[in-house]
Amino acid sequence: MHTFIKDLSNKVGEEVTIKGWLNNKRSSGKIAFLEIRDGSGFAQAVAVKDSLPAEVWQGIEKLTQESSLEVTGKVTKHPKQEGVFELQVCKCAGVQVASEYPISKKDHGPEFLMDNRHLWLRSKKQWAILRIRDTVETAINEYLHSQNFIRTDSPIFTPNACEGTTTLFPVPYFDLGTAYLSQSGQLYIEAAIASVGRCYDFGPVFRAEKSTTKRHLTEFWMMDAEAAFVEHDENLKIQEGLVKAIVKKCLENCQQEFSALERDTVALKKMLDKPFSHYFYDEAIKKLNKLGSDIKYGEDLGNDDEGLLTKDSDVPVFIEKWPKSIKSFYMKIDPENSDRVLNDDLIGIEGAGELIGGSQREDDYNLLLERIRHEGLSEKDYEWYLDLRKYGSVPHSGFGIGVERVVRWISGAEHIRECIPFPRTINRLRP
Amino acid sequence: MHTFIKDLSNKVGEEVTIKGWLNNKRSSGKIAFLEIRDGSGFAQAVAVKDSLPAEVWQGIEKLTQESSLEVTGKVTKHPKQEGVFELQVCKCAGVQVASEYPISKKDHGPEFLMDNRHLWLRSKKQWAILRIRDTVETAINEYLHSQNFIRTDSPIFTPNACEGTTTLFPVPYFDLGTAYLSQSGQLYIEAAIASVGRCYDFGPVFRAEKSTTKRHLTEFWMMDAEAAFVEHDENLKIQEGLVKAIVKKCLENCQQEFSALERDTVALKKMLDKPFSHYFYDEAIKKLNKLGSDIKYGEDLGNDDEGLLTKDSDVPVFIEKWPKSIKSFYMKIDPENSDRVLNDDLIGIEGAGELIGGSQREDDYNLLLERIRHEGLSEKDYEWYLDLRKYGSVPHSGFGIGVERVVRWISGAEHIRECIPFPRTINRLRP
Repeated sequence: MHTFIKDLSNKVGEEVTIKGWLNNKRSSGKIAFLEIRDGSGFAQAVAVKDSLPAEVWQGIEKLTQESSLEVTGKVTKHPKQEGVFELQVCKCAGVQVASEYPISKKDHGPEFLMDNRHLWLRSKKQWAILRIRDTVETAINEYLHSQNFIRTDSPIFTPNACEGTTTLFPVPYFDLGTAYLSQSGQLYIEAAIASVGRCYDFGPVFRAEKSTTKRHLTEFWMMDAEAAFVEHDENLKIQEGLVKAIVKKCLENCQQEFSALERDTVALKKMLDKPFSHYFYDEAIKKLNKLGSDIKYGEDLGNDDEGLLTKDSDVPVFIEKWPKSIKSFYMKIDPENSDRVLNDDLIGIEGAGELIGGSQREDDYNLLLERIRHEGLSEKDYEWYLDLRKYGSVPHSGFGIGVERVVRWISGAEHIRECIPFPRTINRLRP
Repeated sequence: MHTFIKDLSNKVGEEVTIKGWLNNKRSSGKIAFLEIRDGSGFAQAVAVKDSLPAEVWQGIEKLTQESSLEVTGKVTKHPKQEGVFELQVCKCAGVQVASEYPISKKDHGPEFLMDNRHLWLRSKKQWAILRIRDTVETAINEYLHSQNFIRTDSPIFTPNACEGTTTLFPVPYFDLGTAYLSQSGQLYIEAAIASVGRCYDFGPVFRAEKSTTKRHLTEFWMMDAEAAFVEHDENLKIQEGLVKAIVKKCLENCQQEFSALERDTVALKKMLDKPFSHYFYDEAIKKLNKLGSDIKYGEDLGNDDEGLLTKDSDVPVFIEKWPKSIKSFYMKIDPENSDRVLNDDLIGIEGAGELIGGSQREDDYNLLLERIRHEGLSEKDYEWYLDLRKYGSVPHSGFGIGVERVVRWISGAEHIRECIPFPRTINRLRP
């Protein structure tokens, strides 16, 4: 059995074997410093020519960047750096000596890096982002289970669209005509709450948007949650709890990753102890106008507006109760103002943009039918969804969170394409 | 705040409110027994006409099956059934009185139930299967993390096929031609191990198979795991550990669900303490021939063969080292016999069929290139995959587990379509 680098701290004074890749090598000709990674972490192995058999030293000299290797040696504490451990090499064997590695230390253009995504993933920053993504996903699963949500996967092949038809990917489907790739599992988990009470899905969704911004992918991961007997205010509390649980778990588990990314986490820590801010949509518009935005009532917020609104905020900001006219048909109309719906967008701090969109859902059969007709949607396509209001309708609410947007915010990654292992955009289908 | 039914055991003697659906009602005209479910469990509420205001009793009389309701009352222990709790009703309000529910107690045909899948999910058995599925998925995440695997989601849109092209769903993809929906994320996570060491993906995969058996879906969930420096024997140990971890967690958390399904769990318990069985492929063929099968060397096992081989087994059975000729190009050739590969299929007990397929992967550049050419695959399409053998190739292994197959086995469900919330088959795209 070999030892994972993350466990070296428990092995000081022992002789262990680690297996991994040569991340970097410095050699004076008499002493070589091998920076090795094995996925669990990074460690330095120190090889002294005079204390090694000649053929071992020669083997070390031949090792190129990215070569795979097995190194045996005694674990010591780094003489200067607290919490860093080294290996004093007594054996070292290359597993495969790598060809000249195409990704060097100098800057590469994004297209080159994306063409080599299968290799670029190995860079320390990409490694850190992958691990933060895993932590975010785990935090989501854990928090929702702690709140009595059950995971119920939604289908990808759907016969109709949840929100409009212009950005759908069509797929020929046997004798049944065309299937569309799901843009959201929400309608499906609304059905499942009458079975399991509270549920969530967590999978890829698809948008055929011809957009090339830093925030758009054609394929991205969403978590949709839905809960019976939860109304607007409680819905927001669950969302706030989730975002805090994600940040808390990343702060607990990802210090090494944050260092690799040179990510200052002061703002993340500060956020945990305070309640999130709230604006009603019309308050937000007024505030934005004061701050110099020319946004008008009835318009959606742009990226700049989201930035303006959260610029001086220590905490994410809910924007609640938007005009019915610009929101989806399934959102419940505010009993206090029939032009508004009981929804929210949650805007992150540090320029994160929109993290969550949520709403209480229309639970009245007749009102929902009216909205479906008003939007010109096919009544037949939504028959099953209307059924949910015929057989034991309940007040219920839910929300969706975009995984890559959260990962981008927490990791501080510049572009969303770094926040998913193999990004797909309008121009990118490989590797 | 209302109380979840699962928490009633902690509230004996207290007055609480539960919110849910009327699963069933029996009434003598003087006393009514309301079976209520809220997703977390089932409870009986007892309403006595004489002790309630007249309008409350009248409200109860109007409640139909599947009506949503809120009931307040004192929690008592069931007079006869250990571990069952009741509510002595003092308040009861219908939230929405359901229209006549289309799913009755009498037998419905599968097509009718599938057309009403959005409602059928509410039945006790479907509820139990949904919750077992959630538990299986949680167990997979937990076990893999405990073994140092990091979740790295694979892409759904792929430019080429992992295993053949006949069963792919094509999707028109902007100016880039055609994308295919992924059948396996394996090749992608093989790239990611050089970053994170051990990783897994967990998402939907797609097969355009014109098959209508009890075991086929066009869209199903797979978990693929991959680990650097893990060879054939250790790969099997990880698979065995995973299956046992899943069964263990279900036995710990799903007793209520097993009762609802009338699932005898003796065989599941028995399996936990014993090592899994192993046959080499050629031993398995000989044994099958002895048992009466006419399978020939070089053929794949059919369902009947899998059943025969595990009929008298207390534990799942590994079939190892299959003929190279019937297995995928990426499997590593057995150094002891160049006609065989270092792979395994894991066959479940109780007629579960194949649960896992795994293999050590070919890590030699030239041998892999030769296999790709021999299979007539496009060298260019696999260039990035070949790169993984050029830059620090390592011995590595992995496997894939089909979530629905595992859920079907553990829940004892008859048909795989019950093991996913909204199944998609060749004939089924709705609801």
